[in-house]
Amino acid sequence: MKISRRCLPLLCLLVLLRATVSVADEGLWTFDNPPTKPLQARYGFTPTQAWLDHIRLSSVRLNDGGSGSFVSPHGLLLTNHHVARRQLENNSTATKNYMRDGFYAATPDQEMKSPDLEVDVLMAMENVTGRVQEALATATDDKKMLAARKDIIARIERESTEATGLRSDVVTLYHGGEYWLYRYKKFTDVRLVFAPEQQIAFFGGDSDNFTFPRYDLDIAIFRVYENGRPFESAHYLKWSDHGAAEGELVFMAGNPGSTSRLETMAQLERRRDFSLPLRIAQIKQRIDTMQKYAARGAEPARQTGNLIFGLQNGLKASNGGYLALTDPKIMAKKQAEEDNFKKLVTAKPEWQSDFGGVWETIAAAESRASGMTKKQVFRQLDSELFSLALRIVQYTAETKKPDGERLAGFHQSQLESLRFELLSPAPIYPEMEEARMSGSLEESVRQLGNDDEWTAAVLGGRSPAALAADAVRGTKLADPQARKALLEGGTAAVEASTDPMIVLARKVDPLARAFTKWFEDNVQGVEQAAGEKLGRAQFQVYGKSIYPDSTFTLRLSYGTVAGYPMNGTRAPARTTFYGLYDRAYSFDFAEPFSLPARWKESHNKMELSTPLDFANTCDSVGGSSGSPVINRNGELVGINFDRNVEGLGRAFVYQEETGRAIAVHSAGIIAALRKVFDAGVLADELTGK
Amino acid sequence: MKISRRCLPLLCLLVLLRATVSVADEGLWTFDNPPTKPLQARYGFTPTQAWLDHIRLSSVRLNDGGSGSFVSPHGLLLTNHHVARRQLENNSTATKNYMRDGFYAATPDQEMKSPDLEVDVLMAMENVTGRVQEALATATDDKKMLAARKDIIARIERESTEATGLRSDVVTLYHGGEYWLYRYKKFTDVRLVFAPEQQIAFFGGDSDNFTFPRYDLDIAIFRVYENGRPFESAHYLKWSDHGAAEGELVFMAGNPGSTSRLETMAQLERRRDFSLPLRIAQIKQRIDTMQKYAARGAEPARQTGNLIFGLQNGLKASNGGYLALTDPKIMAKKQAEEDNFKKLVTAKPEWQSDFGGVWETIAAAESRASGMTKKQVFRQLDSELFSLALRIVQYTAETKKPDGERLAGFHQSQLESLRFELLSPAPIYPEMEEARMSGSLEESVRQLGNDDEWTAAVLGGRSPAALAADAVRGTKLADPQARKALLEGGTAAVEASTDPMIVLARKVDPLARAFTKWFEDNVQGVEQAAGEKLGRAQFQVYGKSIYPDSTFTLRLSYGTVAGYPMNGTRAPARTTFYGLYDRAYSFDFAEPFSLPARWKESHNKMELSTPLDFANTCDSVGGSSGSPVINRNGELVGINFDRNVEGLGRAFVYQEETGRAIAVHSAGIIAALRKVFDAGVLADELTGK
Repeated sequence: MKISRRCLPLLCLLVLLRATVSVADEGLWTFDNPPTKPLQARYGFTPTQAWLDHIRLSSVRLNDGGSGSFVSPHGLLLTNHHVARRQLENNSTATKNYMRDGFYAATPDQEMKSPDLEVDVLMAMENVTGRVQEALATATDDKKMLAARKDIIARIERESTEATGLRSDVVTLYHGGEYWLYRYKKFTDVRLVFAPEQQIAFFGGDSDNFTFPRYDLDIAIFRVYENGRPFESAHYLKWSDHGAAEGELVFMAGNPGSTSRLETMAQLERRRDFSLPLRIAQIKQRIDTMQKYAARGAEPARQTGNLIFGLQNGLKASNGGYLALTDPKIMAKKQAEEDNFKKLVTAKPEWQSDFGGVWETIAAAESRASGMTKKQVFRQLDSELFSLALRIVQYTAETKKPDGERLAGFHQSQLESLRFELLSPAPIYPEMEEARMSGSLEESVRQLGNDDEWTAAVLGGRSPAALAADAVRGTKLADPQARKALLEGGTAAVEASTDPMIVLARKVDPLARAFTKWFEDNVQGVEQAAGEKLGRAQFQVYGKSIYPDSTFTLRLSYGTVAGYPMNGTRAPARTTFYGLYDRAYSFDFAEPFSLPARWKESHNKMELSTPLDFANTCDSVGGSSGSPVINRNGELVGINFDRNVEGLGRAFVYQEETGRAIAVHSAGIIAALRKVFDAGVLADELTGK
Repeated sequence: MKISRRCLPLLCLLVLLRATVSVADEGLWTFDNPPTKPLQARYGFTPTQAWLDHIRLSSVRLNDGGSGSFVSPHGLLLTNHHVARRQLENNSTATKNYMRDGFYAATPDQEMKSPDLEVDVLMAMENVTGRVQEALATATDDKKMLAARKDIIARIERESTEATGLRSDVVTLYHGGEYWLYRYKKFTDVRLVFAPEQQIAFFGGDSDNFTFPRYDLDIAIFRVYENGRPFESAHYLKWSDHGAAEGELVFMAGNPGSTSRLETMAQLERRRDFSLPLRIAQIKQRIDTMQKYAARGAEPARQTGNLIFGLQNGLKASNGGYLALTDPKIMAKKQAEEDNFKKLVTAKPEWQSDFGGVWETIAAAESRASGMTKKQVFRQLDSELFSLALRIVQYTAETKKPDGERLAGFHQSQLESLRFELLSPAPIYPEMEEARMSGSLEESVRQLGNDDEWTAAVLGGRSPAALAADAVRGTKLADPQARKALLEGGTAAVEASTDPMIVLARKVDPLARAFTKWFEDNVQGVEQAAGEKLGRAQFQVYGKSIYPDSTFTLRLSYGTVAGYPMNGTRAPARTTFYGLYDRAYSFDFAEPFSLPARWKESHNKMELSTPLDFANTCDSVGGSSGSPVINRNGELVGINFDRNVEGLGRAFVYQEETGRAIAVHSAGIIAALRKVFDAGVLADELTGK
């Protein structure tokens, strides 16, 4: 941490406070600003630029919402089973169930193409803060600033895409304190090589989700192809001979989704009092709807697997966040941090003039938003077909506008990935769609009433069930060709369409736009401008000794392989295969603690003391799933797949004492491949033997 | 639950409230009043009188503070390793360490005599409430009542001992609502047959103490002798072939030490605000003192093992109790129960006249006691030699008085057991005694100051270290012969003694008596009378549909073998030997997770899926250690050894959702004996094969 030479007493105090905090293994650091000082201070390690570049170029982001890494010179990509599960389900049929049975391509020709998986590698990062700020300088109010920002960002992205052919995203860091242009090499030919059975990947199911000790082999292995041949990766992570040991320094490189650690108390309080409780109610309804649908039979149960998994995952995470925000100690800590930050700003006239009042501005916006949160949450139709329809309607309208005036998600540089999604051949199950749609509409009616402008427009006098039946049974959008025809036909085709899902989307679109506009004008625009001020204030006060909130872009975190106090005793730093069998036998193999047949048989072939999972203090949130865990030699020692319950407050606050990231151990992966799956060829490629 | 025919509305409400509570597996029931109604309602099981008698006569109480059971026709007695550990340490020497290495007598001549272990079997129970109440009827005030009660109890005990030759104790139940004469057959020739290594009996050490999942083989097996030959027990528990299964109804018969579930809010609040925090501070000091002493070398470490174990055990238990009493939900529940009880009493004029004001009387006594609690806790010398000295001084004085006037502990019927303890040949370690004594005195000075009458008298101007050195180095009381001479010499010998420990005891004795008298007059006497009223009120209101607070006498509890919600997931109902190895390897065999050599080697000989420990909902507290766990056929399925952290509030409240008793599984015991200890002969005797 840099200390200003004109160190005010108050600043000194705060610096000390922050310094105390930074002794922890906290932080989701950008690769342009690695945590060299805390690393050197705590671990005596300073990464070289070559080390950092190698880690960055070996890491990937998956458009299914997770992270991964190259682990062989021939394009092998390691990620989590739960990141790959949509691909596994999409490739499965009523007779071939890769989720249940796993998959292994013993030879290259057996490798299985993923319908719509995109993998991005961050090739370059350029600071464009100056260009963005310059474009904003002439804007006279918040709305003009919002428009100017959209415009300059779209221009930078477009120019970069044209110049380099690389996917180009402008990333907002420190809530607008910095803007960076990230250029990605993009791969869309990604083939499945190996996945274990769901039952071992997710052993313990929703019960053990977000807990430790844990016994999951949550991995999947793809091979990335380029021009029809395995991608010869110049950068990939070598497999560690021993894996992670207790007390060892480790790193994680991944794409943490979204944190709210710089949010003000007013923002946290709206989450606590409105957004989270309503969101929790919504998830519960959706789980309930899907469980009822799954109960209809084996095939419905298979279809809903991924969705229920995601919902339960989201419920536990939301509950964890809610618990954190209702924990008086955590809220007191956040309040103290905000108070200190405010005092510091107030103490310096130039800061006070630039940033004073920003908390009050946000609080006023949050107060306006509070009354609208219920509408924000429940004016939603839970349906893939409807989501496709709405995006098709909006796509045709938006792409006619200048780039800078478009809705978020429809900028020029985003279109290729968006089309890839809109034209995905992944199967859609109409009965399930009907159940989802009518279930979510019933909940909307319960929460908002029949008189709500949106519910009235959507239902048009029909019942939720009748509307869903009409829309789902009448639509042709399950066929990618039908979507393609509409996209190609543009607004004319969309306006002429009598497809009931498109008709519904046309009705909802103006309401959705109006709501979005209201939120932009009254909340988002105000908070974005205020958030930028806060980000700049943070810069002025702390410099880059702190890290920005995460944004599903590449970050580096670091920590120690370590157990923690739990349940009156201690959780160990790692688990072994002995523990897997203990837990399975303890529950008499009852779900979710059953084991696939080959696992029951292979316990005699395996050295059961081999580590299976391990806990570490690396900072992580959702999206970090699949991040490689790396030792100081840059070798792969594990793959991150979860946090423990004690770490679920990480969206808002990092707590080192008991919060832990959980990873599969590299030695456990190799043992399972060799002894259980007879996948020695794959294990040899991974270990380079 | 019986419902009065003249069911008042209020009573009905309360009955419903209590009925809801009694659906839980709650209760430490006396054998004269088994929980037949809840058992029938919840499990469809009604124990016969023969079943009850058989369980009672197969169960034993150990004077080391635990429970056990006969498990073979030839006097084999199963209890916990931690109940037997004082005997193991007493028989150990600097060269033979039975705690570390375990013990197995393959033949009868190798069985090892315990220096001072007494085992009691409850042969008969007689309700003497009428006799006691009759004797109290003429007493005109609380003091006279106290004296009259002491007198009648001593007389009943003496008459019974003379008539039957059996140990005879009058037991106060329902805080004086009932008095029972319990007659015990007493055994003092108890020989050790088997004990595993401390490291497996207490695997996980203090860390895993009071937790689950757990992997402890906390057992010891003695053989009870009578007239120099193995006791041919007519009643013993047959070994179950399969042991306890998840969801199965099980029973525990044991001697739970002491609960405070009928205590008033005023009493609980003094515990919360005074007794427990002070006691916790005291235990911490004692642990600190003993750990410093243990650090002097291997032999001091061995000597202090049992003491530190007991202190850490007590610290965790006290902390657990403190957590319960500071849990707003628990206190609100207790408050609601008290409010309901009070309302009910108030609503009926005759009850109001008999019992009204009793809560206020207790609250006033507690208020007086609060100011004295610090003295009560810290006017204590932590020393075995001093404790012997003080009891010798008091023994000689008390035994000259009529039985009814004696201090508690010195009544005629208690003398034989007391002499057995006072003359124990168990070793005493002078250096350790010195450390204990001076450490506790230093803490007394810190807490009470030098000016306190007691500390001033004890120290006599010397430092704690100097006093301890003088007293311990100068005393001859480590020799049982010296103690015997004093006991036989009576008050004359004691008064003439220049032994410095006796001299100190003579100084402390009058202060201790004065303090005891103050407490009896101002707190204990008042609360005993008030407690009896409360007990009688409880009788009037609820009848014997409820159980009395426990008193280290035989009780029956019942419940289900069941896991519970834990750590965001579920704890299983049982653990297996797989889990033992998982936890050992997970911690790299670091203490307290190391395993004895033969355990490391024998994992290949054993079927690792064999159950090791299991959790159940049976009600239990300290003293229940060693209780047999029994199935509905009266067969032994396990042996109780602990509670989980969630069950530590059981002194005050039973909570079924997560609180669990923890037992060693009968199948795990047999597997360990056969496969690890090569003790097939013993396993055969246990299983009758």
